[in-house]
Formats: sequence, C-alpha cells, structure tokens
Amino acid sequence: MNYTIFGESHGPAIGVTLTGVPAGLELDLPELERELARRAAGNSPLSTARREPDAVEFLSGMFEGKTTGAPLTMVIRNTDQHSGDYAQLRTLPRPSHADYTGAMRYDGCNDYRGGGHFSGRLTAPLVAAGAVAKQLLAQEGVFVGAHIASVAGIPDVPLDPTLDQRAALSAAAAKDFPVLDDARGEKMRAAILAAKAELDSVGGTVECMICGLPAGIGAPDLDENVEGILARHLFAVPAVKGIEFGAGFALADMRGSQANDPFYSAGGEVRTRTNHAGGVNGGITNGMPVVVRAVLRPTPSIGREQDTVDLSTGRNAKVTVHGRHDPCIVQRAVPVIEAAAALAVCQLLGI
Amino acid sequence: MNYTIFGESHGPAIGVTLTGVPAGLELDLPELERELARRAAGNSPLSTARREPDAVEFLSGMFEGKTTGAPLTMVIRNTDQHSGDYAQLRTLPRPSHADYTGAMRYDGCNDYRGGGHFSGRLTAPLVAAGAVAKQLLAQEGVFVGAHIASVAGIPDVPLDPTLDQRAALSAAAAKDFPVLDDARGEKMRAAILAAKAELDSVGGTVECMICGLPAGIGAPDLDENVEGILARHLFAVPAVKGIEFGAGFALADMRGSQANDPFYSAGGEVRTRTNHAGGVNGGITNGMPVVVRAVLRPTPSIGREQDTVDLSTGRNAKVTVHGRHDPCIVQRAVPVIEAAAALAVCQLLGI
Amino acid sequence: MNYTIFGESHGPAIGVTLTGVPAGLELDLPELERELARRAAGNSPLSTARREPDAVEFLSGMFEGKTTGAPLTMVIRNTDQHSGDYAQLRTLPRPSHADYTGAMRYDGCNDYRGGGHFSGRLTAPLVAAGAVAKQLLAQEGVFVGAHIASVAGIPDVPLDPTLDQRAALSAAAAKDFPVLDDARGEKMRAAILAAKAELDSVGGTVECMICGLPAGIGAPDLDENVEGILARHLFAVPAVKGIEFGAGFALADMRGSQANDPFYSAGGEVRTRTNHAGGVNGGITNGMPVVVRAVLRPTPSIGREQDTVDLSTGRNAKVTVHGRHDPCIVQRAVPVIEAAAALAVCQLLGI
Amino acid sequence: MNYTIFGESHGPAIGVTLTGVPAGLELDLPELERELARRAAGNSPLSTARREPDAVEFLSGMFEGKTTGAPLTMVIRNTDQHSGDYAQLRTLPRPSHADYTGAMRYDGCNDYRGGGHFSGRLTAPLVAAGAVAKQLLAQEGVFVGAHIASVAGIPDVPLDPTLDQRAALSAAAAKDFPVLDDARGEKMRAAILAAKAELDSVGGTVECMICGLPAGIGAPDLDENVEGILARHLFAVPAVKGIEFGAGFALADMRGSQANDPFYSAGGEVRTRTNHAGGVNGGITNGMPVVVRAVLRPTPSIGREQDTVDLSTGRNAKVTVHGRHDPCIVQRAVPVIEAAAALAVCQLLGI
Repeated sequence: MNYTIFGESHGPAIGVTLTGVPAGLELDLPELERELARRAAGNSPLSTARREPDAVEFLSGMFEGKTTGAPLTMVIRNTDQHSGDYAQLRTLPRPSHADYTGAMRYDGCNDYRGGGHFSGRLTAPLVAAGAVAKQLLAQEGVFVGAHIASVAGIPDVPLDPTLDQRAALSAAAAKDFPVLDDARGEKMRAAILAAKAELDSVGGTVECMICGLPAGIGAPDLDENVEGILARHLFAVPAVKGIEFGAGFALADMRGSQANDPFYSAGGEVRTRTNHAGGVNGGITNGMPVVVRAVLRPTPSIGREQDTVDLSTGRNAKVTVHGRHDPCIVQRAVPVIEAAAALAVCQLLGI
Repeated sequence: MNYTIFGESHGPAIGVTLTGVPAGLELDLPELERELARRAAGNSPLSTARREPDAVEFLSGMFEGKTTGAPLTMVIRNTDQHSGDYAQLRTLPRPSHADYTGAMRYDGCNDYRGGGHFSGRLTAPLVAAGAVAKQLLAQEGVFVGAHIASVAGIPDVPLDPTLDQRAALSAAAAKDFPVLDDARGEKMRAAILAAKAELDSVGGTVECMICGLPAGIGAPDLDENVEGILARHLFAVPAVKGIEFGAGFALADMRGSQANDPFYSAGGEVRTRTNHAGGVNGGITNGMPVVVRAVLRPTPSIGREQDTVDLSTGRNAKVTVHGRHDPCIVQRAVPVIEAAAALAVCQLLGI
Repeated sequence: MNYTIFGESHGPAIGVTLTGVPAGLELDLPELERELARRAAGNSPLSTARREPDAVEFLSGMFEGKTTGAPLTMVIRNTDQHSGDYAQLRTLPRPSHADYTGAMRYDGCNDYRGGGHFSGRLTAPLVAAGAVAKQLLAQEGVFVGAHIASVAGIPDVPLDPTLDQRAALSAAAAKDFPVLDDARGEKMRAAILAAKAELDSVGGTVECMICGLPAGIGAPDLDENVEGILARHLFAVPAVKGIEFGAGFALADMRGSQANDPFYSAGGEVRTRTNHAGGVNGGITNGMPVVVRAVLRPTPSIGREQDTVDLSTGRNAKVTVHGRHDPCIVQRAVPVIEAAAALAVCQLLGI
Repeated sequence: MNYTIFGESHGPAIGVTLTGVPAGLELDLPELERELARRAAGNSPLSTARREPDAVEFLSGMFEGKTTGAPLTMVIRNTDQHSGDYAQLRTLPRPSHADYTGAMRYDGCNDYRGGGHFSGRLTAPLVAAGAVAKQLLAQEGVFVGAHIASVAGIPDVPLDPTLDQRAALSAAAAKDFPVLDDARGEKMRAAILAAKAELDSVGGTVECMICGLPAGIGAPDLDENVEGILARHLFAVPAVKGIEFGAGFALADMRGSQANDPFYSAGGEVRTRTNHAGGVNGGITNGMPVVVRAVLRPTPSIGREQDTVDLSTGRNAKVTVHGRHDPCIVQRAVPVIEAAAALAVCQLLGI
C-alpha cells in the first residue's frame, strides 16, 4: 500500500490516493471519522480557532461498503479559509516555517496561503489513510497506539515497554488530551495555556507502540529495515525532528550489560526481560512491542514579532503572524503519529 | 545512485553494488582506502582483535581510472575468520544481537557465523560506497563530516551549527579517535577501557554535518523529505537506535520563541541566527548546514555470561560470547555515519 | 513525475494524482481540453453512445494558473452512467474483458459496473496527465505524436522514420479520424461501420513518434532502458497487446546488413540513414526519432451472444452485452498512446 | 526479488546481485550450470568462437547449500578477452551497436572493449539469476519455457497456446538448437550458415510460455500490469525490439468475434477455448498459459565494411568489425528470454 497526500491549505480540497489497498475490507466509517475527530481542533482553547468538518468523500476504490482493490481516493473540501490572513507571507517568510524553503524549492510558485501544501491541515488525509491502514492491521491482530509522552518538559507516566499496552493506549485515545495520567495531563494543559498567554508555543514528544507484530519482520538492509521504514514515514509528519526506538538516546549513556535485553522462555515463547531495543534487533522485529518516540518541535507560528528577511528586497524585516494557530500541536499529533506508523507497518507486512 | 551491500562475515567476501554512478568520476583510490582505514580496527586496544586488510577489488564500473556509468561492484575478500568461535550461536542467541531475529526472519537459514550478514564488518563496503558518494559530492561543493559527540556520557565540545565546519571536521577525521577536543577524547578512551576491563561495553552519539547544500533541496512528501531520506539511510547502520536533527529531542522542552531560527540577510544571502532546525524546514534544506545526530547503542557483544533461550529446546540457558569484539564502536562508526549520510545526500541531489 | 489513475466507470468520479510535477508550468487548459476532446466519443457513429463532458477539476497542485510543484490531482465527475446495463456481469463475465480476472484478483469486490476500474473511461485521466506531460516536454523541445497505423488490416501511408514528423502528426491530431492519408481513413471508417453492422468490432495499430530527444537518454539496465520504460507505460493502456520499436517484428526476417542503420555525418551531427532501430540502440536514444508501434485488440464488447461461464453456478452459459460500446477504439486510442508515451518520456528525462 | 547485472565484457568479471531471495532454497547448482551451458556458445559453427567456462562463484547469500535470504552475489570471471580486437571502436562506432549511444550517454567513459556493459556476454549473469528464479517458481508449481519461434523467416511449428506445454518445452530446452520441430530447425541452421558465409547475420523470434500461474495475478495499473512487467524485463535483454502477448500483432487484423476467447467450464474450472489474449485480460492472469513472443534483431556485428562516422573528426568513415561474433543469437537467446521472464514472474508473485 502506497499513499500520496495532495492538496493545499487554501486550495479547493485536500486528500489522499492510496494504491495497493487489499480488496474486501469493510471499512468502518464511523471509526475513520473518530480518528479524524481526534486530530481536529475541536473547541479547545489549546488549539487553533480554525474549524472544519473534515467530511471525507470517497471518489474511488469503495463499492458496496468495501474496498475494491483499485486505487482509493478520499477528498476533504476546504471550507473555512481566511486567505487574507496570509498575504504578507509571500515576501516575509515566518521563522522555522516552510515559507522560505517552499519558495526556494518551487521557484516561488508554491501556494503560500496558510502554508499551502506544508500546512498541518494536510495531516487530515494522512489520518484518513492511517485509519484504513489500522483497520487492515487489526485484521492481522496488529495494533498501533500512541500517547503524549511529554509536553513542555512535563512527562506522562512511563509505559512498561515489555507489555502489550493496547488497553492503556486505547483508553488514552478516547480522551480529549491523550495521556495515560490525567493529573500529568492537567499540568501539560496549564503549560500550554501559559505559553499561549505569552504569545508563545511549546513542543513535546509522542510515544507510539505497535503490538502484535510477530518476530521476523524486516531486514537489516536499506529498503527493508524496520527502523528505517518507520522513520521514513514518521519524518513525513510535519514538526517531527527526531525519532528513537526503545531506550533511544538514553542508550548512549548505558553500558552493554544494562542495555542488552536478556532472553527468557515464557511457555516456549521467546521474550526479553527488558525492551531497551524497542522490539527491533538488526532491523528485524523480535516479537516484543515495537516502541518508537518522536519529538515535535514547538509550533513555529507564534503571535510575537520576529526577525525575517523581505524576499522582495533582500533586506532584514519583521514579521508578525496574525493567522489562527495552535500553541501546541502535540495532542493533535498523537493520531497523526499513529497513522504514519500504521502506514509504515503496512509497508513492513507487505500490505 | 542506489547501493546494495552483500556478504556475510564468514563467507567468501563482502562487497557493494552501486547503480546510477555518474560516468567520468576519477576515483581517488588512496582517499577511498583512507576512509576504509578510519573504519578498520587498527591496532587499538579500543577495538576488536580481528585484523583484515580490507583490500577492495573493483569488479566492474571502472575503466582507465574513471567510473564508466555502468553498475560498480567492489569486493573485499574475507581472510581472518575464526568461525569456530561462533558455533554455539546457532542455538544460543546473544542478547540484543540479531542472532534470534535473523533465525526467525530467514527460517534458520541465515549464516550465523560472526553475525553473518548482520555483522559490523558489512560496514566496510558501506564506507567504500560512501567514499564514492563523497567524491561525487565534493564535485558539487558538498562536504559530509562527523565527529564523536559523546561516549559513555562524556560529551565532545559542541559544534557551532550555524557555521560551515568542514575544517574542524576534517581535522577530527584525521585523528585515530575523531573528536574535536582531544582532552575530552582522552576521557572517553579511559571510559571505554574501564568498561572493557569489566567485560562490558559503552555507547555514544555521532554528530554529522552536511555543508554546502543549497536551499531548496527535498520536499515535504514521503519520498523526498530530507529528514526521512537521511533517517532511512542512517538507520541501515548497525547499532543506530535514534536520529535527531538540529536541536532534536531538546526541542520538546523549548518554547517556540526559543526554538525558532530568525532569518537575517548576510549580504543578500538569507541565513538564520540559530540552527535549531538543523538546516531543514518542511522537509527542505534552508541553506544552513544540515546537522544530524545518531545514537549508537553499546556493543551487545560483552564478555559476561548472559541469559538466553536455547532455540533447540525452548528452555532458558546461558551464553558467553568468546569471539573478538569491540568494547565501543562509536569511534569506528564515525566514517560509517558519514558514508550513509553521503549516500543519502546523493539521493537527495538526484546523483 | 509519477501518476496514479483512480476511479471506476460508475463510481462518483475518475481522476489522476501526479507527483513530482515541476513547479511553474503555466498550464494551457484549452490545450488540455483539446486532448480530452480527441479521446472523447464525440458524435461519431464509430464510437459509443455514452456522452460525458470530461470536465476536469483541479483539486490541488495549481495556483494562480501555474503548477505549484506539490502533488496535482485532477478529477472528472461521472455523470452519464447507466448502471442497470451491467448487472448481469457480476456472474456472467464477458469474454476477453476483465470481468473474470477482476473478480479473481479482487475476491469479487471489484466494482463490476461498466468495467469498473478497468473501463476504457479511465483513459480520460490518463490523457489529462499526458497533456501535462506533453506541455512539460514541449518546454524541452520534445514532441510526442501518433497516428492510426492500421485499422481492420487497412494501413495508413507509412511515415518516414528518419525525419522529424511533428508537422505531419500535428495535422493528423487535428482530424476527427487521425490518419495521415484521408483516403485510407475513409476505408478504415467503412470497415468499422461494416463490423458494427454485423454486431462486431475491429482492431488496429497506432504508431507513435517522439521527436527532439537528444542522443544519450536511457541505459541498457532494467530500470532505465528506453524500450522497457516506454513498454511499461504503453502496456498500461487497455487493449494494447504488443509493442515494437522501429522495424519491430519485421526485423525477425531481415539480414543484419539490411537491419543495421549506417551512420553518417550531417554537418557534424551524427545521424543514421535508416531507422530500423526506432531511435534506440542498447536501450539508449541515438538522436533519431523514437518510433514505437502498439497493437490494439478489437473491442471485446460486441453485440453478439457469446459463450461464458456462470460464476455463481460454475456452469456454461451465454452472455449478450447490451451496454453502449465502440466498434473500434483505435481512433480514440491515439491520444491515449501519446499520453502514455509522454509520461514515459518524462520518466526517461527525469522530469 | 530484484537484480542488478554488473560487469563489462573485458573487465575483471561479470555478475549479478540479487536481493529479496527467499531463504532456504536448496539451490540445484548442476541445473544452474545447465542453464548457463544452454546460453554458452558451445562448439557450434553457429556461434562466436569466444569460449569461456562461465564458472559461477557465489560471493554471498549461500550457506550450507541454501540461500540465506541475504543479498546473493554471483560472479563469473572474464578469461578469454581479446581486447585488441576492439581498439578502433572508440572512435568508429559500429552501426546498430551501442558504441555510439554508450559514448553519448557516458561521456566517452564507458568501457568500449567488446561492447563493455552492453555486451551479450552480460546475459550470462542474467541466466544465472533466472536459474534461481526458475527454481523458486518451480516450488510454486510455475514453469517458464521457450523455444525458437522463427529464424530468418522460417517458423517452428506452432504451439497450442491453450495447453500446458511444459513437456514439449522441456524437450526443446534439452536440444542444442531449441525448436519443437527438428526438421524446421535444420532449415534454420542452414539459413544461419548461409548468412554467415555471406558475412551477414539473421534475426528471429522466441516464444515463451509461463504455465501454472493461477488466475488473478497482476492489476490493470502501471506498476502491477502483467504485460507491462514482463515487457519491462524482456526489453532489458539485448537485441529485443518487440514484445507481443497471445495473438499479438495479428489481433490488429481480427474481428472481435474471432479475437475474443470464449469461456467454458472444465469440471468447474473456468478456461477459455482459444488463447488469443495470451493468458492476460486487463493486466491480470486468467489462469490460461501466459504466452509472450519477442523479436530479436539480426546480430549487428557483421563482417562487412559498413558506413559510420569517425567520432574524433566528425567525418564519414568506414568500419569493419573483426572481433568474434555470432551470425545468429536467437538460439542462445532462448534461455535468456526464459530467465528474464522468470524474474518478471517472481516480481508478479511478490517473490
């Protein structure tokens, strides 16, 4: 299964074309809509004021409620654009946004309105594609879930990485603010609102677990490596700047005797006592949960005046972003990370 | 340019087949050998006692000292195998090695001797391929360099990420132990030897910088994303468990006002005052140095007895690794990370 | 540039998603519509009675009249479906159609109405994609044109393959019935109508020429071979059952001394006196026009009763096709072959 | 399974790197050598005087007689080069060879000796790769066989395309001159020798049948189309200039009522009474044998003086080819076509 996300924030529509979808999946549309609702801004003061229904139209690949096996295209119409907000961005690129790199890459022809094809809004079709992927994986007994691991330096409670955590992660997914521990979540919310009050934004991390994968998926080589394939998909999520598996960067400071995951036999099944490797050895799954963490940078859109360069004159200038934006996108990124991971796992399984 | 690494640690040979190599490159063979020597164990007490000359034979793709444009295959014969050391690995997988996952993936048919195709020895042809990539990039004014960023929790001095650091990194590359600050390097060496004395190993991080890339390379989409392409290549390096760009995981705890990189005009050229984004916005280069860091887990081969499962009986068992191994592979990984990054940059540039 | 055609004949819409479109192309929409009109059935008695406007909506990838460089999705709504005509096809597959193979491939979940994703109607978005490709190629001085080479055994006049024929082929393209010689065309039309009167159909061949390609494009290897890339694209056109370059199958009966194309110097430029190789030697262009011919089988939809198997019972049965269909699709296939060839040439040129 | 052929005719070696080979195949080496012997020139007056043992060395991917699943590299050393024969080719390209296009493509850096990477000698590793593919397919009950369909205008007897012909094609494969009818074969040999006596060469066609494929393999779309995938692989065989399926180009002159293949039930199994479609409808197999024919142009190397251009001066010149060459390569191409087809079928089956 391959996917192509298309669309621009202020164009007629956004959407996704999936190829290689297996035929005969009875797509659970309410479930797909729930996934989209998790990503949507909702009415929360934590998120942008932009409100759109994210109603998905299936243009192809569905017949009598089932996938046909032919390419599946889903489209979401754009309805709540305020294009006027963004006119200045043509010449005054926002720091750490893609306004400047987009102009350089596309010779100034990119649709700059609202970030165009770079907009976080493009994660809606990614979530829709991920919902298809998740439903296919569920048929194979594979689950993909995630939670906020930290916001603004405040960590959620740790997740035991040696256990199948689908119950805990499903419970988190049902929340407005998807953490394991709501008390920690309250502190995170407070930190987000504090940043918002100061016209600022905060970042965080999302932890994703894939449960139910058998041992022996993947390969050490470039094109089949489990970590490489997950990373490739996760870095396509806007704002992700780092990926780590298992103990990740903490492994740098560990000894081998600590970092190694000893094997033991659990009723004939081979398991490991710890899961510092995040379920992957030599690019191949070992049957333990796959654990991957992504860092999401603070939203670059902040209400403060910032330094920039006027591209029309080449001179230093100031820019203040007036559009609607999120003081934190970590909570909305949780289903997006799950979607990207689910699409990666489909690739790994040859789905 | 695509590459396929082939070979097993104790098979007849290891090597690499490169396709899409531009014709007419006058390959600097002494330079290629220097790269291989950086990776080789040398005579250091820090590394494995396995000694092999890593002599490269070109089977194809070279004519009269230049690349022909046809597929280029380089082969390195294996000569110093002690296969007897590894016979027990068939049934007693070493913790956090790929013995178990390899057996599961390949139905027990993988060459288990010395790690087979999973062996760190396979990084020799990767370095050879990377040497070709680096020479091609040099023609475009692009430089790829790296240094040890930390070993056993001891950091090297930081590298200013807003400056072209090719001089500093070239100087580091010429050292046996590639750090910027030799005093820090001495502490790292001491930590490695201390771990070795305790039959243990240590991990660390490598920081890589790509200088000379223009703004406008890459795209936000899955197949062209700068971060995704670099990550895909870097995760194919054994022992890498995490990748981060710019400030990376530290961005999780920053505010947007700190994390954003303000633009300024430097004689008409657009630059950023900080480089927390690691030279990439929206999956596209912004003209600043690209900075990527990888974490390398501690070598899983340690001289201590460890818990495992006997795959022939399904029962708990013990394994002690007697083969030759490295107490730390971070210093040897520096040219390997450079090689993988250089191959990724070739992909980005359509070379 | 890659493309994915999506949609089903009787679904909500058909369309295409293009990726890797260079930014900044000022798309000539009237020209794109002319290409679609060439493919459309028109009012001719030679074609199906299905009439649809083929109005293209751009969902993404266009801004201020130019391509943005982001994925470009074009959609054509289906409006003139008579789905009732096709209900029997679910169990009674039409001979030489894809009803049976589609059911086998997609476990009976394919949209069988009007051929579903296999319908010739899906060539409309292919022509739209090809129109984008042609306009990109025109910027490079490359032209792709075609004409009917034969229908029902009646050949058009031959095209001198050693000359740039863009004038002759552009003239043919402007005709309702795209032949070089109208007298021959009249005979072909008569043969089509004669077949139609007998509730039958006829096949034919289309000859395509690519002018303006420099020498040195392509490679002998699997992924870059000019002939392989063109064939891959052309066989994706429904009804194509064979592809040949230059003298093609006639080479089987020639001697080397006849088949070889002698080189000569034309004011310093290297040319060949004949073009039996169709502009390609060793998988690489030689600077002469690339000449490729495709055979299109007679339309399998004929009004006669035919033998089939009832898939619901496994027993022999009869089927009579009552839907609207074309007694010949060769004339409508000419712009489709051009489109597929143009997309192939974009791949060859790295566009 | 993907493959990369490497090597040049007069370089140190030729070979192939296969990736994605399933683990655990007990490779039948004598069978692989028999395949190579079928392609080798032998002692026949019909072929080149170049004699090489084509001894295959496995560098990787094999352990204890079985494939390991890791990349498999096979190498054949070049031993019987007469490089002096070819020195003139640097400036005097042979008509209809790739000397000129190779020089243009690779900026004059290609190894021109003996055709370099374009040499027919490179079909030896292709046959070796195909032998691996065939053994994998045999495990699935799939057979790939071929015979000479014509040489110099003399046809072999026709093969009934509705029947599984593995017995007849295996019998042909065991012959020095792989035809179904030896009397026809004698006439072909005589035609080859007659051409050779006149310092000329002849072409022909090879017919290939794939038996045992179930219905439902492939898809109509660009990347999965059965005909497109086979064509892509077959056009990578040197000298192939056309490909047709089933009745192929003869379909151009047929009526739909003749060309359609009526379905019938054979004990519950759906079959077709004729097989004009060559076992493929809508890009998907229908369970009948897949029949594909390739045309091979006459060997461009002939002993006569021919017109060319001196690339060093740009002026018209003469060239006479003195190297060893074949007056006909059709008989040697039979196992090569089988190999390419077998590799294509592996791609279709996801092997």
